[in-house]
Amino acid sequence: MKKNRLFTPGPTMVPESVLLEMARPIEHHRTAGFRKMFEEAHGLLQYLFQTKAQCVTITGSGTAAAEAAIVGCCPTGHKALVINNGKFAERWEKVCETFNINHTTLPIEWGHGANAEVVTKALQADREIDTVICVQSETSTTALSDIEGIAKVTRERGAILIVDGITAVGAIPVKMDDWGVDVYITGSQKALMLPPGLGFAAVSDRAWERIDSATTPALYNDLKAYRKSLEGWDVPYTPAVTLIRGLLHVLRDIKLRGLESIWAETALLARATREAAKAMNLKTFAVDPTDSVTAVMVPEGVDEPALRKEMRERHGFHIAGGQGHLKGRIVRLSHMGYVDAFDTLGVIAAMELTLIRQGFKLEPGSGITAAQKVLAEANK
Amino acid sequence: MKKNRLFTPGPTMVPESVLLEMARPIEHHRTAGFRKMFEEAHGLLQYLFQTKAQCVTITGSGTAAAEAAIVGCCPTGHKALVINNGKFAERWEKVCETFNINHTTLPIEWGHGANAEVVTKALQADREIDTVICVQSETSTTALSDIEGIAKVTRERGAILIVDGITAVGAIPVKMDDWGVDVYITGSQKALMLPPGLGFAAVSDRAWERIDSATTPALYNDLKAYRKSLEGWDVPYTPAVTLIRGLLHVLRDIKLRGLESIWAETALLARATREAAKAMNLKTFAVDPTDSVTAVMVPEGVDEPALRKEMRERHGFHIAGGQGHLKGRIVRLSHMGYVDAFDTLGVIAAMELTLIRQGFKLEPGSGITAAQKVLAEANK
Repeated sequence: MKKNRLFTPGPTMVPESVLLEMARPIEHHRTAGFRKMFEEAHGLLQYLFQTKAQCVTITGSGTAAAEAAIVGCCPTGHKALVINNGKFAERWEKVCETFNINHTTLPIEWGHGANAEVVTKALQADREIDTVICVQSETSTTALSDIEGIAKVTRERGAILIVDGITAVGAIPVKMDDWGVDVYITGSQKALMLPPGLGFAAVSDRAWERIDSATTPALYNDLKAYRKSLEGWDVPYTPAVTLIRGLLHVLRDIKLRGLESIWAETALLARATREAAKAMNLKTFAVDPTDSVTAVMVPEGVDEPALRKEMRERHGFHIAGGQGHLKGRIVRLSHMGYVDAFDTLGVIAAMELTLIRQGFKLEPGSGITAAQKVLAEANK
Repeated sequence: MKKNRLFTPGPTMVPESVLLEMARPIEHHRTAGFRKMFEEAHGLLQYLFQTKAQCVTITGSGTAAAEAAIVGCCPTGHKALVINNGKFAERWEKVCETFNINHTTLPIEWGHGANAEVVTKALQADREIDTVICVQSETSTTALSDIEGIAKVTRERGAILIVDGITAVGAIPVKMDDWGVDVYITGSQKALMLPPGLGFAAVSDRAWERIDSATTPALYNDLKAYRKSLEGWDVPYTPAVTLIRGLLHVLRDIKLRGLESIWAETALLARATREAAKAMNLKTFAVDPTDSVTAVMVPEGVDEPALRKEMRERHGFHIAGGQGHLKGRIVRLSHMGYVDAFDTLGVIAAMELTLIRQGFKLEPGSGITAAQKVLAEANK
């Protein structure tokens, strides 16, 4: 008996109730029913991002939403600082290159997050910078940046802060208005536990002013078009209606459970996983670890592709490998969305079994016991 | 995040692929398509029961199939021996009473299984007995009877043996023809991992002779009517077509995986659970334990309804309590059907967490580590 369990940091597992919701007969999007659903979903997105700002839904991936935000916020005459501490940050740099956006890069060692101090220095070094682009939870390295601190110094400078919250929003603390973030981005296939296909941007009034100040070299990804349509809870282009129906279902559930409780639960699973790794004599990669995904270093003598293959084919657990120069050196386990403590014990148990079979010296039960101790402590 | 996981010894969890199969549009049963499906399913049922005998599918529960077999095999002039070692055996005694079937009862202490020796004695004590009714895996007490041994002495006597295999067939070794069993019964909602609604009887030629020898005081549950319809792969009364479609899907999968491998896997989960219980200083109830379900005794000072409630409401694990005089004294965990090693570690972990919260002295991780050791040993 082999069950499939997705522990990749996106796509993540989709709840059965959401699959059923999305399986209902399709309806047209130019209807009062769709507009009503879309209105409610956008109200709930504000709760998700903890903001009063206008949220925008694009049928596309998180990359589409991030590109729309970067291109919209960086017309000619502006300059962006791209904080680059991983594979996804690199992608936002590539957006700047592709669209000839004036930018400079702040390189940060992989595994580390950015903070107010390094951003302050970069801002002081280049007075032209008026836009900062930062990844909160860098999925490739599992490093967390201090968005609250960075937002503070960005605001002081009067610059606009665009945050890639793709593996942050709905998983770990995100407080757009409290922190003073201008644009927050996320996607459907992470903590929102939906299939891939929707990107979201929450856009502050300050950011809208910038976006309105010039013509965007984009049609499909022009945030202005989405905002205009949203005046009638409508869309400029045909939306993924079944995903939006699933979205409403998920957002209602998130509201019911409460973000604070979800953040605490994600943190608990991450802590249990890190303790398990330690007990198994495995190192975690990130110096500043995020709680939405954990990177565990593959120990000497263990073949990473074989490890993942056996986890998947023998035990049904799908985990992710490393990207870039981390390929073959780490595996990554998600703590986002539709995953609970018992799934997490399962993936740790499967990793124990696989490592043992691959000759790594390990006492069966050592990892899961360390994780269970964390769970028992939290269950008091 | 709470996921629901059924560990009750029926209904058990249904695979997603089966749910999807059953969700397909309904089709009429008086069609060539239905007959083709029904024919293939009945061929595969013979593999399931390990028999060349005619198998019969009744839309109803396992009780319907057992009643049909008992009533059909015990017309006036015959006498049944009902081996009574639990709640389900009691039900077959009640069938005899209800239909005025001449019978005598062999009482066996709960938790024990029957074997050739006790059945031989009972047969010697009453020369009129020509039918033996026995439960292989008594779900209420989790005791296993030795059907191979009992079939041997029953055959020597020339009596007909009816076996309730409801939590045995598809979970633990069942070899109808090798052993010489005359009627084997099962239901859909156990090892067949389907929703409830189908009962099955595999009926030997010897049993059909007996069934044909008299008029059965039954209409819906008259096995003869089913056998006659099966000549054209048809049904006498409207069948649960979606369940039969799911059945074909499940049986193909069981054939592909192979019964021996499934039996080994069920045994492994049971062994891991028993070792976990021991490591948690918990006693298991059965003296002759079956591998399809494990009864764990509730320790002194722990409230059984509260234990099950917390397992269910806090952790999403549905386990069963005791029946009859075992109510409040045991809980039962299934190892049948769509359940794997990681689900099993999960239910043990949830039990650890719940017992600890209820004040039972227990080191977190002790149960799951013992189970993991069994799994690691088997994973070599």
